[in-house]
Formats: sequence, structure tokens, C-alpha cells
Amino acid sequence: MGRMSGKRVLITQTSAFMGADLVETFRAEGAELILDDRDLSVPGAATALIEGAGRVDVLLANLAAEQPRTTVLETDDDVFRSMFEALVFPLHALVLGVLPQMIERRAGKIVVMGSASALKGMPKYSAYGSARGAQLSYVQDVGVEVAPHNVQVNAIAQTFVENPTYFPPSYQATEEFAERIKGAPIGRLAHGWESAALALFLAGKESDFFVGQVVPFAGGWVTR
Amino acid sequence: MGRMSGKRVLITQTSAFMGADLVETFRAEGAELILDDRDLSVPGAATALIEGAGRVDVLLANLAAEQPRTTVLETDDDVFRSMFEALVFPLHALVLGVLPQMIERRAGKIVVMGSASALKGMPKYSAYGSARGAQLSYVQDVGVEVAPHNVQVNAIAQTFVENPTYFPPSYQATEEFAERIKGAPIGRLAHGWESAALALFLAGKESDFFVGQVVPFAGGWVTR
Amino acid sequence: MGRMSGKRVLITQTSAFMGADLVETFRAEGAELILDDRDLSVPGAATALIEGAGRVDVLLANLAAEQPRTTVLETDDDVFRSMFEALVFPLHALVLGVLPQMIERRAGKIVVMGSASALKGMPKYSAYGSARGAQLSYVQDVGVEVAPHNVQVNAIAQTFVENPTYFPPSYQATEEFAERIKGAPIGRLAHGWESAALALFLAGKESDFFVGQVVPFAGGWVTR
Amino acid sequence: MGRMSGKRVLITQTSAFMGADLVETFRAEGAELILDDRDLSVPGAATALIEGAGRVDVLLANLAAEQPRTTVLETDDDVFRSMFEALVFPLHALVLGVLPQMIERRAGKIVVMGSASALKGMPKYSAYGSARGAQLSYVQDVGVEVAPHNVQVNAIAQTFVENPTYFPPSYQATEEFAERIKGAPIGRLAHGWESAALALFLAGKESDFFVGQVVPFAGGWVTR
Repeated sequence: MGRMSGKRVLITQTSAFMGADLVETFRAEGAELILDDRDLSVPGAATALIEGAGRVDVLLANLAAEQPRTTVLETDDDVFRSMFEALVFPLHALVLGVLPQMIERRAGKIVVMGSASALKGMPKYSAYGSARGAQLSYVQDVGVEVAPHNVQVNAIAQTFVENPTYFPPSYQATEEFAERIKGAPIGRLAHGWESAALALFLAGKESDFFVGQVVPFAGGWVTR
Repeated sequence: MGRMSGKRVLITQTSAFMGADLVETFRAEGAELILDDRDLSVPGAATALIEGAGRVDVLLANLAAEQPRTTVLETDDDVFRSMFEALVFPLHALVLGVLPQMIERRAGKIVVMGSASALKGMPKYSAYGSARGAQLSYVQDVGVEVAPHNVQVNAIAQTFVENPTYFPPSYQATEEFAERIKGAPIGRLAHGWESAALALFLAGKESDFFVGQVVPFAGGWVTR
Repeated sequence: MGRMSGKRVLITQTSAFMGADLVETFRAEGAELILDDRDLSVPGAATALIEGAGRVDVLLANLAAEQPRTTVLETDDDVFRSMFEALVFPLHALVLGVLPQMIERRAGKIVVMGSASALKGMPKYSAYGSARGAQLSYVQDVGVEVAPHNVQVNAIAQTFVENPTYFPPSYQATEEFAERIKGAPIGRLAHGWESAALALFLAGKESDFFVGQVVPFAGGWVTR
Repeated sequence: MGRMSGKRVLITQTSAFMGADLVETFRAEGAELILDDRDLSVPGAATALIEGAGRVDVLLANLAAEQPRTTVLETDDDVFRSMFEALVFPLHALVLGVLPQMIERRAGKIVVMGSASALKGMPKYSAYGSARGAQLSYVQDVGVEVAPHNVQVNAIAQTFVENPTYFPPSYQATEEFAERIKGAPIGRLAHGWESAALALFLAGKESDFFVGQVVPFAGGWVTR
């Protein structure tokens, strides 16, 4: 009997970002998993996913897009918009799809796997950071709005977490990474399961008092 | 001889939000004003504006869109995207247009007239608040990136400021407003010129050390 | 076999603030409890407590003092200092006492039961809020400093949590409370066990990546 | 006719921290200066200062103490308390002394020259950072409380600003400094007059809408 037993948990974009670790952690805790890996930047994809998902007790909104790492001047309109198409618009579609059943049951959890990069300025992050910032403000507003319905919406604002999308082994081998990790007082990357453990906490009954909250998860890089 | 004398200052969307107050304050300080009121959500509009603007020493990115005040469930995809079309994508286009000349001169100021609503969860703000949040994270990233070029990009995150778009007299007369203003310890709206005075500070040489910063302006509603 | 089995957990000021709930939650998870209820504002008391405590795997720094609820002008020097004598100086003494053994073992957790009142301005909070603010900055600095020793120091910044010190039934019956709770989007107090569940998360191995962090716990009253 | 003409401005601890730059900037703007350099950690000193100061329109609470730069374990009780004796208790005494006349006149400004170190964890800052954190929470609470009296209390949370106490030329010559300044995206120290210019803004009528606010001033090291 795990902490998620009896819970139907939807995990999106399973092959990217925190997907694999979320699957492993929530499966180990007895969740009934609804796994999906379609491209949610396609119009209608997020809505279709929810329509086919049946009951969803927990939505783990795991959305990722390759950080373009362009300077502002290199970030043309297409690159800029693509971040919002991948990270922001599907998030709203997922939330819009899943909220009615949660509100009706007066029970439900949404955890957005977001980024700490939205909390602190960084060079070459204008497009990605801006879209991640939109996610966090969105979570604050939706979380506060639906709190009276006993539905909890929160976000993890993470960085320095091992995952195939943003911190693959190839990136960990670069000098840029060696320089950048100095900014994390803890001096190491988080294992993927550690971020999944925070998601598990935010998906469980014990965190019902968290609503519309952004929880930094960054090894001391940001601390509030 | 005003504090802006010799400076060419571009103010966008002059008929909305802080437009009128910015015009008045910067004119009084001797700026050479470049005023524009076109709809910047039209594709290409922001780019065209900059191309025709000549030298721009200060860009006051005054972008506004009516807050839809819809619940999350009432916020369909069109409403949601329209906030980004009005507030976020034109901001990047304006910045992208104006930065090259500023970087080349190693001098320039961009002040984004943003919203404190991005800093704190509020019901019925999911679309608007999310787009305003994107603006703030964008400013942080761009501001930090271009700081070494001696160009300063900052944002005002305001609320409870008199302006025709968000706090018109008709809204000030509602019970909703009477309840809401209780949340501002100062107990009054800011006059428009007070927000413009902060923009003036951020547009002047005395604030060169501010880069990528979000300055709340909210009468104590948020204080950091 | 609970999540704290084999762990020696020190809880201070057990009769106040979150003491009772921490005892119950950590006992249920199999911790070996070291319980203390002495007045830690007495010089030397905190140091003596640690000297007699033996091995401490987890320190739950539960420090409380009655909020004087005085206006600034009513807050004389004695009242003001008394908050620091109760909340800040003993915290440093406890940390100073317990860190050497934790650093030597390269293992240890300190969770400070702090207050969200330090995060947002409130009338009649100058003394109490200031001392609570000192706690949070202290945690940030110590947490970042000792992170490389594999010791984790974090804080909960809570409010609107049922407890005998700050939200006793008598206070819950007041009009002041009825007005104040409107500021919490969730619309209810947290049960004491919910705050203890967060402390449990921060005391466990799954949160090793949290260092020097301030976690608001406030039902949406603050969200980052 | 300067921006401070007709204003009586009290500057404390003039030989330390931002004292010299505040004197120069406010004198140039026509203020009538009340300058004091006594040791305000002496009991009663702050109270005596205010009693002898006559009318004070603007209080620039410039309080400094040498950062001990001790590790947590090296920070004994005396070192720890000395930071609060120098930075926190005199601040309250100054505010307590000066507020009654400001409240009576329904006019007055208090600007606290604080530190950004309270906003972000740093090694070897536990005592200093904690006291600076107390200052900032204090300003939030007092600022919000006295806002209805038309008195404005705000703080500058600065770092990387040239001054004889924290960034003297001798420190600027160290390798530690060379490493540390990399954390400031702007890549330079602020001149002292730049911080004084922010204090001037916060001391003037144009910033009356700022109450209980903490304004980071850190060249991008923190941005909100």
C-alpha cells in the first residue's frame, strides 16, 4: 500500500524532463498511472488527452521544450513563441480540461514541474525564462482561485536537477556546467527522484494547505 | 532644462494604461517624445514602430489589454492567448527592435510598465496574471544579459494606480473596488504621476545600477 | 517502521507553538524523541540543553514568544528585545551547539518553525515580525554555509496554523480573526498536523536538496 | 533650489557605510543636514540623538557594523549579539524617537540603509545577515503600520556599493572580491552616489506611494 494507492495520476510528456522519474516514484507508491507522451504543442492535443484520460486525481504537468540558449538578439519571433506553445498554452489547456472533474469531486491535485530560472535573471534565457515565468504566475492565480473548491494547484520551480532534457550527461561534461554548478551552494545536481519526491509531497493529502504556491527546488541557488 | 532634456523617449500605446501620465511627466522633464498608439498585437506592428522611430534613448514599454476577469473555467484558449498577443509578444518585438542601437551606443534604458498582479495569486487573473508574469521574468533575463552593454532594462510591477485601463472612475465606484483597496495598507490609489515618477527614476542616469529588476509599486500590497 | 525510525529528534519548547503536533507526528513515524520545555531565553539554557541531549539527528527548533501586538509606539525597548531573546539568540545557541556533531557525522537536519509574518508587512508586528525575519535570514545563511557538510538547515514560514500560542480557540472566536482569515485564499486554518507533515518532509532524506530555504506555509496568503 | 530644500534631514553614523555619500547628495539638493556620528549601540544613544535633533523631516537610518566574516561555528554569542546591538536595536530606538513628530505632522520619511545580504544565503554571514534580515522585516511592518499616518518607511537592500565599511579599496583588491563580483551581472560596484540617489528618491514626495518596501540595489545580484 503506497502513498498514492487508489489514485489515478496523469503524467504528461513522459519521455522528457522529469517524466521518467515521476513515473518511477509514483508507480512505486502504488499510483494507477496514466502516461502520455504526445506533443502537447499541437493545437487540441492537450484537450484530447484529458478527454481520453478518465478520472484524474493528480495531474503532473510535466512540460518541456529545449532551451534555445539564444541571446535576446538571436531570439526571433518564432523561437520566442515556440516556448509559449510548448510550456504555457498546453498548461492552460490541461488545467482547463481537468479542473471541472476535480471541482465536481471537491478533490484534486495539480503539480506543475516548473523552473527556478523564472525566479532569477540569467543571460540567454529570455524566451525560456519568460515562458517559465508565465507558468508560475499562472499557478499562483489558478491555485488561489480554486482553493475554495478543495483543489490544490502548486508548482515546483527547479533547477540543477538531473534530467535528460536540461541536464543530460553531455551537458554535465561541459565547462559551462562546471562554472554554473558553482552557483549552487549544495555543490551537486539533485537526483531526479528527489524532485519526484517533492512532487509526491505536493500530490499527497499532507500538503492540502499548499495552494497557488511556487516551491523553489534549487540546492540553495534561490532560497525563497 | 529637465532631467530628460536631450533624450528621445518612445512611449507606446499612449491612449491606454500609463500612457497619458508618462507623456505628461516626460514632456515636463524636457524629453523629445516619440508617441505611438497603434495596436501592437498586430503582427509586425511593433517591429514597424521601432523601424520608424529613429534614435530611441528610452523605451517606455507601456502595453495594456483589458483584464478579462474570467474564472479559469471561463478562460478559453482565445482569451488566454490574447493576453500574450497584447502584452508579451509585442514586448519582445519592441525590445528586439530597439536593443541593437542601444547596444551599439552603449547607452539606453527600457522601462516596462508591468503589473504587481504577477507577484501574488488572485482569483480571475489566470490569463492576465500569467502574461504579466511572463513580462517580469523576461525583464529579469534580458536585463541581466544586456547589463554588460551598459543598457538597463527594468520593470515596474504596479497596482492600485489610477489609470483609464485598470482603475477607471467607474471601477473605483464599485463595491469590489471598495473591498479590494482594503488590501493596500496605504489606503488610496496612486496618482498616475507617481508611477510616472518611478518610471522617470528608472529612465535616468541615477538608476544605472538597476538591471533586470522588478520594482513593486503597490502601496504596501506587496513589499518585496 | 516509520519514516523517522532510528532517528533521534530534538523538539524544543514542547508546550508552545507547534510542539504538541511535532511530538505526535514524529512519534508516530518512529522517532526517538528528545523533548524539552525549558525557557530558552534564559542565558545558557540552549547550550545546556544541547550538551545534555546526546546524539541529535534532527533538531526541530520550535521557538515561540507571545506576540505583543503593540503598535510601534507602544513597543518599548524591553518588549522589542524580548522577542530576540526568545526567538533569535536561542536559535543561534541551539544551532551552534548541535552543528559540530552533525558536521562530524556529515548528516543532520535542522528545521526552524518560523513565521510567514516576516515575509509581509503587518501592523502591530514590528517587534515580533522583525525577530522572525532575523530567523529566516539566519537560516538562509547557515543553510548555505553548511550545505557542503551534508547538513540541511531550512525553515517553515507559517501562518494560519492551529496552535495554542498564536491561534488558540479564544483568538479564533474574535472578529479580528474573522477579518484576518479572509486574507487566506484557502479559507481555513491548517491543522497542526499539516505543518508537522511539512516538518517531517524537511526532516527526511527525500528533502536533502533543500538547503537554506524558507518554505512559506500559509494557505495562499503568501505564495513565494 | 534643490529637491530637499526646506527639509531637515538626519543622517546617522556619518563616518561609516553610506554616510559620506548621503551627506554629499542631500547637501547638494539643499537639505538642512543634521549630522551625527556617535556610537548608537550605546544604550540610550539613539534616543538622546533624536531628543536633541529638533524637527526631522527625513531620517536616513545609516547603521553599520563590521561584518565579522566568521563561520557559524566561530560566531560566539557575543559576536552574534553585537550585530543586533549595532544594527537592529538602535534602528527601533531611532524610529520610536522620530515617529511621534512625523505622525503629528502627518509627514515624514524614513529610509533604512540595509543590505541585500539578508535576501540571499551566503556563507559566513549568519550573524550579520540575520541582523540585516531583522531590519528588513521591521521596515515592512512599521511601514505598513504607519502608512495611514502619511509617513513613509522604506529600506534599501544594497550590496556591491562602494563604501568605506564593506567595500573599501583594500577589499576590492582581494581575490575574494574578484570572485564575488562575478555574481553581479552588471560587473562593477555602484558608486556611493548611486545608492544615495536611490535614498533621495525614497526621501522625496514622488515616492509617497512606497510604504514598507524593500528595494534591492545590487546590480542584478538579486532582482526582486
